[in-house]
Amino acid sequence: MRPATSPLPAPGPDPLRADARRNRERILTAAREVFAERGIDVPLTAVARRAGVGMATLHRRFPTKESLITAVFHEQFTACVAVIDAGLADPDPWRGFNTVLVEGFALLAADRGFSAAVTSAFPDAVGTGTERRRAFDGFATLTRSAQASGRLRPDFSPTDLGLLVAAVNGVTTLLPGDAAAVSRLVSYLIDALETRPDRGPDGRCGTTGR
Amino acid sequence: MRPATSPLPAPGPDPLRADARRNRERILTAAREVFAERGIDVPLTAVARRAGVGMATLHRRFPTKESLITAVFHEQFTACVAVIDAGLADPDPWRGFNTVLVEGFALLAADRGFSAAVTSAFPDAVGTGTERRRAFDGFATLTRSAQASGRLRPDFSPTDLGLLVAAVNGVTTLLPGDAAAVSRLVSYLIDALETRPDRGPDGRCGTTGR
Repeated sequence: MRPATSPLPAPGPDPLRADARRNRERILTAAREVFAERGIDVPLTAVARRAGVGMATLHRRFPTKESLITAVFHEQFTACVAVIDAGLADPDPWRGFNTVLVEGFALLAADRGFSAAVTSAFPDAVGTGTERRRAFDGFATLTRSAQASGRLRPDFSPTDLGLLVAAVNGVTTLLPGDAAAVSRLVSYLIDALETRPDRGPDGRCGTTGR
Repeated sequence: MRPATSPLPAPGPDPLRADARRNRERILTAAREVFAERGIDVPLTAVARRAGVGMATLHRRFPTKESLITAVFHEQFTACVAVIDAGLADPDPWRGFNTVLVEGFALLAADRGFSAAVTSAFPDAVGTGTERRRAFDGFATLTRSAQASGRLRPDFSPTDLGLLVAAVNGVTTLLPGDAAAVSRLVSYLIDALETRPDRGPDGRCGTTGR
């Protein structure tokens, strides 16, 4: 370990940068915990307090709240993109769509801060990163394929994803730790979104193919 | 205003009681606003501050947070009971069940504090008033009738009401002011809960009667 009193920047990895990196990690960890517990509407002072740093340090590492949110949820966003890619790779688009809802909502349910962050981005997606746009575009593509296959209701819009995310967030927030409740809601939503062959043009069973 | 040093209660309608009533109303109004804006998890200091009273006064009028919540949401609970009674009075129990979801959730969506209060009471209903128990019993009766009519899925449990309320609360909280989003979610949920005649024992259309 280098002595803290070292008067000059050392060649190679310098102590100030190491400090900055440590602070950044400490702030990210604190923000992840605070957002997961209390959502993303908490004041940043709560994050600074948990991290044990001053507001000046927090602002130096993360000039805006958005930049902090983006950094905190980078991993979860990446996992969401992977789930959507897996859905798109499924030769059965309705099964792929189901995978995205089941596995994507499991990721969301694990962290109420994350679903609040995603909802604030859908459907406007203002100032978002590449992952978020990719995720939404992938979901829109999968929606169209699942609709073309005849299994997903034609009146479902990809922007309804924000509505579904908000509904799951409500369960995560008001029934915390109840993973069974989340999967029960997701299963209801999937049932709601499947085309009903019994509701053809004349409203009777069997009037549309399956 | 009475001098704080007044040594004895006055005869007849005494000024202290009028003061107490005014404080009670002021606290109820403030609590309704604060709960609607921020949910019921807010500290009571926020309610006292909005009402312009001290914490001692607040505690004198409402010894527990539950007693304040019950008083604040008394009107909404009564309206919910009326909606459930209307549903029970409908000769078509599935239509009655639909009425309860559509109109009941409209009441909930109008106030995020109210749905949080209801969710904290379902399904445990700990320390609740008569309205709450009546509402839940009425909903359970309506559920059984709608299932007996063949239109409501037999695997729906009345305690799932808490799950649905939480989902609607998520939409009310994360997409505030978007009444269309709430009714879209409710319409999806109703579709999810309707028996699918195309899902008989062998999973094919037309295998169960309708």
